[in-house]
Amino acid sequence: MEFPAPTPRPPYYAVIFTSRRTTNDALGYAVMAQCMLELAATQPGFLGIESVRDADGQGITVSYWQTLESIHAWGSHAEHRVAQAAGKAKWYEMFQTRSCRVEHQSYFQREGRDHGHAAD
Amino acid sequence: MEFPAPTPRPPYYAVIFTSRRTTNDALGYAVMAQCMLELAATQPGFLGIESVRDADGQGITVSYWQTLESIHAWGSHAEHRVAQAAGKAKWYEMFQTRSCRVEHQSYFQREGRDHGHAAD
Repeated sequence: MEFPAPTPRPPYYAVIFTSRRTTNDALGYAVMAQCMLELAATQPGFLGIESVRDADGQGITVSYWQTLESIHAWGSHAEHRVAQAAGKAKWYEMFQTRSCRVEHQSYFQREGRDHGHAAD
Repeated sequence: MEFPAPTPRPPYYAVIFTSRRTTNDALGYAVMAQCMLELAATQPGFLGIESVRDADGQGITVSYWQTLESIHAWGSHAEHRVAQAAGKAKWYEMFQTRSCRVEHQSYFQREGRDHGHAAD
Protein backbone atom coordinates (compact mmCIF):
# COMPACT_ATOMS: atom_id res chain seq x y z
CA MET A 1 0.00 0.00 0.00
CA GLU A 2 1.32 3.44 -0.86
CA PHE A 3 2.07 5.59 2.18
CA PRO A 4 0.68 8.20 2.60
CA ALA A 5 -2.32 7.08 0.56
CA PRO A 6 -2.78 9.18 -2.61
CA THR A 7 -6.26 10.60 -2.09
CA PRO A 8 -8.28 12.85 -4.43
CA ARG A 9 -9.32 16.43 -3.84
CA PRO A 10 -11.69 16.64 -0.81
CA PRO A 11 -14.40 16.12 0.17
CA TYR A 12 -14.14 12.37 0.72
CA TYR A 13 -14.48 10.19 3.82
CA ALA A 14 -12.13 8.53 6.29
CA VAL A 15 -12.45 5.84 8.94
CA ILE A 16 -9.92 6.21 11.75
CA PHE A 17 -9.45 2.86 13.52
CA THR A 18 -7.37 3.22 16.70
CA SER A 19 -6.63 -0.04 18.48
CA ARG A 20 -4.55 -1.86 21.04
CA ARG A 21 -3.76 -5.51 20.31
CA THR A 22 -3.89 -8.33 22.79
CA THR A 23 -0.86 -10.61 22.78
CA ASN A 24 -3.04 -13.45 21.40
CA ASP A 25 -2.53 -15.25 18.11
CA ALA A 26 -0.02 -12.97 16.37
CA LEU A 27 0.14 -15.11 13.24
CA GLY A 28 -3.61 -15.45 12.84
CA TYR A 29 -3.99 -11.72 13.31
CA ALA A 30 -1.28 -10.87 10.78
CA VAL A 31 -2.83 -13.10 8.12
CA MET A 32 -6.34 -11.73 8.69
CA ALA A 33 -5.14 -8.12 8.77
CA GLN A 34 -3.35 -8.50 5.45
CA CYS A 35 -6.35 -10.28 3.97
CA MET A 36 -8.69 -7.46 5.08
CA LEU A 37 -6.36 -4.80 3.61
CA GLU A 38 -6.45 -6.57 0.27
CA LEU A 39 -10.20 -7.17 0.37
CA ALA A 40 -10.92 -3.54 1.34
CA ALA A 41 -8.93 -2.39 -1.67
CA THR A 42 -11.32 -4.20 -4.01
CA GLN A 43 -14.48 -2.60 -2.57
CA PRO A 44 -16.53 0.05 -4.42
CA GLY A 45 -15.58 3.55 -3.29
CA PHE A 46 -12.25 2.54 -1.74
CA LEU A 47 -9.59 5.25 -2.15
CA GLY A 48 -6.65 4.11 -0.01
CA ILE A 49 -5.49 2.92 3.39
CA GLU A 50 -2.67 3.72 5.82
CA SER A 51 -1.82 1.44 8.73
CA VAL A 52 0.86 1.75 11.42
CA ARG A 53 1.39 -0.34 14.57
CA ASP A 54 4.19 0.16 17.07
CA ALA A 55 6.11 -2.34 19.18
CA ASP A 56 3.72 -1.76 22.12
CA GLY A 57 0.74 -3.02 20.11
CA GLN A 58 -0.86 0.40 19.58
CA GLY A 59 -2.10 0.88 16.06
CA ILE A 60 -3.82 3.44 13.87
CA THR A 61 -5.35 2.44 10.53
CA VAL A 62 -7.04 5.07 8.38
CA SER A 63 -9.04 4.00 5.33
CA TYR A 64 -10.36 6.51 2.78
CA TRP A 65 -13.63 6.21 0.88
CA GLN A 66 -15.61 8.12 -1.71
CA THR A 67 -18.89 8.09 0.20
CA LEU A 68 -20.44 7.19 3.56
CA GLU A 69 -22.38 4.49 1.72
CA SER A 70 -19.15 2.79 0.67
CA ILE A 71 -18.02 2.84 4.33
CA HIS A 72 -21.27 1.26 5.48
CA ALA A 73 -21.11 -1.38 2.75
CA TRP A 74 -17.58 -2.37 3.79
CA GLY A 75 -18.58 -2.43 7.46
CA SER A 76 -21.28 -4.98 6.71
CA HIS A 77 -19.33 -7.06 4.16
CA ALA A 78 -19.71 -10.74 5.12
CA GLU A 79 -16.01 -11.62 5.36
CA HIS A 80 -15.25 -8.35 7.13
CA ARG A 81 -17.96 -9.19 9.69
CA VAL A 82 -16.23 -12.49 10.42
CA ALA A 83 -12.94 -10.63 10.92
CA GLN A 84 -14.63 -8.08 13.20
CA ALA A 85 -16.05 -10.84 15.39
CA ALA A 86 -12.63 -12.50 15.67
CA GLY A 87 -11.11 -9.12 16.51
CA LYS A 88 -13.48 -8.70 19.46
CA ALA A 89 -13.09 -12.34 20.52
CA LYS A 90 -9.30 -12.47 20.63
CA TRP A 91 -7.19 -9.86 18.82
CA TYR A 92 -8.10 -6.48 20.30
CA GLU A 93 -7.84 -5.22 23.85
CA MET A 94 -9.78 -2.17 22.75
CA PHE A 95 -10.52 -0.14 19.68
CA GLN A 96 -12.21 3.08 18.66
CA THR A 97 -13.69 3.63 15.22
CA ARG A 98 -14.39 7.15 13.96
CA SER A 99 -16.03 8.07 10.64
CA CYS A 100 -15.14 11.49 9.25
CA ARG A 101 -15.67 13.76 6.30
CA VAL A 102 -12.28 15.01 5.04
CA GLU A 103 -12.56 18.72 4.29
CA HIS A 104 -9.00 19.81 3.53
CA GLN A 105 -5.61 18.25 2.83
CA SER A 106 -2.05 19.31 2.14
CA TYR A 107 1.03 17.37 1.14
CA PHE A 108 4.78 17.83 1.62
CA GLN A 109 7.54 15.84 -0.02
CA ARG A 110 11.25 16.47 0.28
CA GLU A 111 13.04 17.45 -2.96
CA GLY A 112 9.83 18.33 -4.81
CA ARG A 113 9.50 15.00 -6.58
CA ASP A 114 6.27 14.47 -8.50
CA HIS A 115 3.96 12.52 -6.24
CA GLY A 116 0.48 12.46 -7.75
CA HIS A 117 -1.11 13.69 -4.52
CA ALA A 118 -3.96 16.16 -4.90
CA ALA A 119 -4.10 19.33 -2.85
CA ASP A 120 -7.54 20.58 -1.93
CA MET B 1 -1.56 10.47 26.55
CA GLU B 2 -4.52 8.12 26.86
CA PHE B 3 -4.90 5.72 23.94
CA PRO B 4 -7.38 5.72 22.26
CA ALA B 5 -8.09 9.38 23.09
CA PRO B 6 -11.35 9.79 25.06
CA THR B 7 -13.35 12.04 22.75
CA PRO B 8 -16.83 13.53 23.30
CA ARG B 9 -19.97 12.79 21.36
CA PRO B 10 -19.56 13.90 17.70
CA PRO B 11 -19.46 16.17 15.86
CA TYR B 12 -15.92 17.35 16.53
CA TYR B 13 -12.84 17.67 14.33
CA ALA B 14 -9.71 15.64 13.64
CA VAL B 15 -6.36 16.29 11.97
CA ILE B 16 -4.81 13.14 10.49
CA PHE B 17 -1.05 13.64 10.10
CA THR B 18 0.55 10.80 8.12
CA SER B 19 4.32 11.00 7.81
CA ARG B 20 7.53 9.24 6.97
CA ARG B 21 10.62 10.24 8.93
CA THR B 22 14.05 10.83 7.52
CA THR B 23 16.87 9.16 9.44
CA ASN B 24 18.14 12.61 10.51
CA ASP B 25 18.47 13.84 14.07
CA ALA B 26 16.49 11.22 16.00
CA LEU B 27 17.11 12.85 19.37
CA GLY B 28 16.15 16.37 18.26
CA TYR B 29 13.02 15.00 16.65
CA ALA B 30 12.01 13.02 19.73
CA VAL B 31 12.39 16.03 22.01
CA MET B 32 10.46 18.34 19.68
CA ALA B 33 7.69 15.77 19.08
CA GLN B 34 7.15 15.32 22.82
CA CYS B 35 7.23 19.08 23.35
CA MET B 36 4.61 19.62 20.64
CA LEU B 37 2.34 16.91 22.11
CA GLU B 38 2.46 18.66 25.47
CA LEU B 39 1.98 22.13 23.99
CA ALA B 40 -0.96 20.99 21.82
CA ALA B 41 -2.66 19.62 24.93
CA THR B 42 -2.74 23.12 26.47
CA GLN B 43 -4.41 24.78 23.46
CA PRO B 44 -8.04 25.97 23.45
CA GLY B 45 -10.34 23.39 21.90
CA PHE B 46 -7.88 20.49 22.23
CA LEU B 47 -9.66 17.17 22.91
CA GLY B 48 -6.97 14.52 22.62
CA ILE B 49 -4.21 13.02 20.49
CA GLU B 50 -3.10 9.57 19.35
CA SER B 51 0.33 8.96 17.82
CA VAL B 52 1.93 5.77 16.51
CA ARG B 53 5.18 5.29 14.61
CA ASP B 54 6.55 1.95 13.46
CA ALA B 55 10.13 0.71 13.14
CA ASP B 56 10.20 1.71 9.44
CA GLY B 57 9.62 5.39 10.30
CA GLN B 58 6.02 5.51 9.12
CA GLY B 59 3.77 7.39 11.52
CA ILE B 60 0.17 8.43 11.97
CA THR B 61 -0.77 11.10 14.51
CA VAL B 62 -4.41 12.09 14.94
CA SER B 63 -5.31 15.12 17.04
CA TYR B 64 -8.91 15.93 18.00
CA TRP B 65 -10.37 19.42 18.35
CA GLN B 66 -13.67 21.07 19.24
CA THR B 67 -13.75 23.39 16.21
CA LEU B 68 -12.00 24.15 12.92
CA GLU B 69 -10.97 27.47 14.47
CA SER B 70 -9.04 25.68 17.20
CA ILE B 71 -7.23 23.65 14.50
CA HIS B 72 -6.29 26.80 12.60
CA ALA B 73 -5.09 28.52 15.75
CA TRP B 74 -2.82 25.59 16.62
CA GLY B 75 -1.53 25.46 13.05
CA SER B 76 -0.38 29.05 13.27
CA HIS B 77 0.90 28.93 16.87
CA ALA B 78 4.38 30.51 16.92
CA GLU B 79 6.28 27.60 18.51
CA HIS B 80 4.40 25.10 16.37
CA ARG B 81 5.43 27.05 13.26
CA VAL B 82 9.08 26.73 14.28
CA ALA B 83 8.59 22.97 14.70
CA GLN B 84 6.86 22.74 11.30
CA ALA B 85 9.76 24.49 9.60
CA ALA B 86 12.27 22.14 11.24
CA GLY B 87 10.13 19.19 10.19
CA LYS B 88 10.32 20.23 6.54
CA ALA B 89 14.01 21.10 6.79
CA LYS B 90 15.23 17.86 8.31
CA TRP B 91 12.82 15.46 10.02
CA TYR B 92 10.24 14.43 7.42
CA GLU B 93 10.70 12.68 4.10
CA MET B 94 7.05 13.41 3.40
CA PHE B 95 3.82 14.07 5.17
CA GLN B 96 0.14 14.47 4.44
CA THR B 97 -2.19 16.51 6.64
CA ARG B 98 -5.95 16.02 6.46
CA SER B 99 -8.59 17.99 8.38
CA CYS B 100 -11.87 16.21 8.99
CA ARG B 101 -15.21 16.51 10.70
CA VAL B 102 -15.88 13.44 12.84
CA GLU B 103 -19.48 12.36 12.32
CA HIS B 104 -19.74 9.03 14.14
CA GLN B 105 -17.72 6.95 16.60
CA SER B 106 -17.94 3.63 18.38
CA TYR B 107 -15.81 2.04 21.08
CA PHE B 108 -14.99 -1.53 22.10
CA GLN B 109 -13.17 -2.63 25.21
CA ARG B 110 -12.57 -6.19 26.32
CA GLU B 111 -14.26 -7.27 29.59
CA GLY B 112 -16.69 -4.33 29.57
CA ARG B 113 -14.67 -2.13 31.93
CA ASP B 114 -15.92 1.42 32.39
CA HIS B 115 -13.93 3.57 30.03
CA GLY B 116 -15.45 7.06 29.90
CA HIS B 117 -15.60 6.99 26.10
CA ALA B 118 -18.71 8.54 24.56
CA ALA B 119 -20.63 6.75 21.82
CA ASP B 120 -22.35 8.98 19.30
